[in-house]
Amino acid sequence: MVEEGTTTTGSLAGRPHVVIVGAGFAGLACARELGNTEIDVTVVDRRNHNLFQPLLYQVATAALSPADISEPIRRTLGRYRNIKVALAEVVGVDPAAKVVHLSEGEPIAYNKLVIATGSEYNYFGHDDWRAHAPGLKTIHEARLIRQRLLLAFEKAEQTRDPEEKRALLTSIVIGGGPTGVEMAGAIAELGHFMITRDFRDLAPEHFRVILIEAAPRILAAFPDDLAQYAERSLEKAGVQVLTNTPVEKISKEEVIAGGQTFRTGCIIWGAGVKASPAASWLGIEGKAGGRIPVDPDLAVTGMSNIYAVGDTALGMGEEGKPLAALAQVAKQQGEYLGAALRTKLLEGRQPQPFRFHDRGNTAVIGRNAAIFDFGTWKMKGRLAWFLWAIVHVYLLVNFEKRLLVSIQWIWRYATRQRGARLIDENAGIEVPASTERRET
Amino acid sequence: MVEEGTTTTGSLAGRPHVVIVGAGFAGLACARELGNTEIDVTVVDRRNHNLFQPLLYQVATAALSPADISEPIRRTLGRYRNIKVALAEVVGVDPAAKVVHLSEGEPIAYNKLVIATGSEYNYFGHDDWRAHAPGLKTIHEARLIRQRLLLAFEKAEQTRDPEEKRALLTSIVIGGGPTGVEMAGAIAELGHFMITRDFRDLAPEHFRVILIEAAPRILAAFPDDLAQYAERSLEKAGVQVLTNTPVEKISKEEVIAGGQTFRTGCIIWGAGVKASPAASWLGIEGKAGGRIPVDPDLAVTGMSNIYAVGDTALGMGEEGKPLAALAQVAKQQGEYLGAALRTKLLEGRQPQPFRFHDRGNTAVIGRNAAIFDFGTWKMKGRLAWFLWAIVHVYLLVNFEKRLLVSIQWIWRYATRQRGARLIDENAGIEVPASTERRET
Repeated sequence: MVEEGTTTTGSLAGRPHVVIVGAGFAGLACARELGNTEIDVTVVDRRNHNLFQPLLYQVATAALSPADISEPIRRTLGRYRNIKVALAEVVGVDPAAKVVHLSEGEPIAYNKLVIATGSEYNYFGHDDWRAHAPGLKTIHEARLIRQRLLLAFEKAEQTRDPEEKRALLTSIVIGGGPTGVEMAGAIAELGHFMITRDFRDLAPEHFRVILIEAAPRILAAFPDDLAQYAERSLEKAGVQVLTNTPVEKISKEEVIAGGQTFRTGCIIWGAGVKASPAASWLGIEGKAGGRIPVDPDLAVTGMSNIYAVGDTALGMGEEGKPLAALAQVAKQQGEYLGAALRTKLLEGRQPQPFRFHDRGNTAVIGRNAAIFDFGTWKMKGRLAWFLWAIVHVYLLVNFEKRLLVSIQWIWRYATRQRGARLIDENAGIEVPASTERRET
Repeated sequence: MVEEGTTTTGSLAGRPHVVIVGAGFAGLACARELGNTEIDVTVVDRRNHNLFQPLLYQVATAALSPADISEPIRRTLGRYRNIKVALAEVVGVDPAAKVVHLSEGEPIAYNKLVIATGSEYNYFGHDDWRAHAPGLKTIHEARLIRQRLLLAFEKAEQTRDPEEKRALLTSIVIGGGPTGVEMAGAIAELGHFMITRDFRDLAPEHFRVILIEAAPRILAAFPDDLAQYAERSLEKAGVQVLTNTPVEKISKEEVIAGGQTFRTGCIIWGAGVKASPAASWLGIEGKAGGRIPVDPDLAVTGMSNIYAVGDTALGMGEEGKPLAALAQVAKQQGEYLGAALRTKLLEGRQPQPFRFHDRGNTAVIGRNAAIFDFGTWKMKGRLAWFLWAIVHVYLLVNFEKRLLVSIQWIWRYATRQRGARLIDENAGIEVPASTERRET
């Protein structure tokens, strides 16, 4: 019953073997470029799916389902018969022996190694805050936030204590970057509409969303006028924006920031990322938040046969400035490296150095409100929001997802209702102590 | 900011108060009939969503997302300003004081009480089997099965031990009722296609699905010829059907049945249901699997102001035969009771007794194979499968879900690919010891 063409593609003698660790934007783009070539490729990831992180905040706010924005890695790469996928956790690299060590099972030998392990939230030394204030990097965290948000409303409906009700109806988002702004805007929309329509004992004026930022203004990566527009839009949507307000303490039901104490039903962390701990596998010192310095061809500086791409790599832009940890950087680096490895391994030529092409930076605040910064020109408002929606639908992995997400967005735009308001049944659901443990 | 029309509808003096426990097919249908009337209604459920159970097997086999088949109860009932929803667990009823006791918070007083708490899987005294062989009643269980199924394939791809590989690629479904048949057929389709396309070190001939049934034939509720057709279709899809094979023991990786020992990567239980424990709240003896005997008007026999509908009620059909625990019975009983309570409470008239209208019985085996039994005439094959799909899309709660599910089915029919192949990231996920604990 073995079909024709389904030969097992282990490391056949003579064929070079590229191992890619991490199947995010960078890793997948790299693997695709190597698909159906005379190179053996193994993609290792501790999850079985690739996640479209830019829309994860919509899962957390009950607008989309996890499967709408995640795709099995095997499904994406299944068409390439030279690519193997392994669900495994990498725990170390031996550059001398050219092997990758896994937490379980035998080590994997490589000719070329690509590290594309991404980033995680940085709690700046307060790792105990993670349990109370999950970030938005995994589906598990998005579900956890959705769970806490919806449960807080349910509890608020039931309690008779007005103080308690007020606290449960207060959501706090920490960090005024794009994720924080998107979350705050989305929670405000969800809450206002749900209270008005679906609850009987809650008043919209008791519902609060507070966005806390330590810096003097939100959206530091954007020009001042766009950030100001975003702040005004958030406030119009009912979000209280507190700048110059560093967080001092987070516990289960309380945030202390800027000397004030806020009681809350749901806390979300979006205050900064750091690179994955891949630098330590290589025995090198990460820079700028643990990132691995790379040469213009994305080879890890000072090492041979090892490359790093995406958030975990510290690449340099045109003017010698470090490239930001953005999806478009990761994707372009992955594509570049895949093509470069092909050139190198199959044709023996040295590739051109990597050059980043800035496609513009965007953040969405809510219904009819988004900002776009293309460097030379800028956009905001309804048109920017529309463009944001089109771009994000287009970036989804296949036609089915595009259709499913479009329909849900159109439906929601028309009705303001959210489809995925599921409170999970497993009450024991807890955020992992560290994203570093195996998450299967 | 309180909108006009959003008055709080507590139990206003003079207005009767109907409390409905459980928002499944029966409870929701009953609530809808009472919507926007001069009756105060409170719907209590320990989950925040209503689940379309007939398609839960598709969540378990990665074809649909949980949110595609579940709808927030508040969203369904939000339009009726006289209906309150409470996320709470009922732990008892005091018929003398006419109150319902909750696990947390104050008791709820009622004038009329409707019990619609459904059924759960029956492990026939072997409750320790539940952890190894989850049933298909909740989203949590469906996710758990999906998780185990997909993880077994991933582990099989990695192991070099051929015995282990074989065991991991063996799925066992216990119980040859509609759920068991649907699950077995769906796993067979998923596995064969995934192995051929997306895995490199697995051979389709090592993949096995075994359907185990203690009785002499599967689908006892269907006519013999339809059951035979289903068995043939299952075998054509690669399912091994073992009848006359009672299960003796279930452990984590093994099933002993009919004297044989089967090593397996995933076990699913579909071997029989029992009523929810609501009978014990009323201090009465449940019959035929814990069901509450009801009079022709669905009032609990021997009690006043308390009604029971759906799987948890033991109603009688035309010829004095007990009605089956089916969605259509539940829905019809709920609709009847809602209308009857309206008649009784608002007009003071006595309603006609309940009469069940049989809409036919169906089961789906897989792609192009389903059976329909309408009593007088029967259907099987591709046309039955097509009708099954249309009926089930139609039965979904709103236009958005219908569209989303239709698109995914058409996509899957064309490509054979499954979209929701997510392995959850929370490794600690475990089936609850009993479905009776609060599942939030």
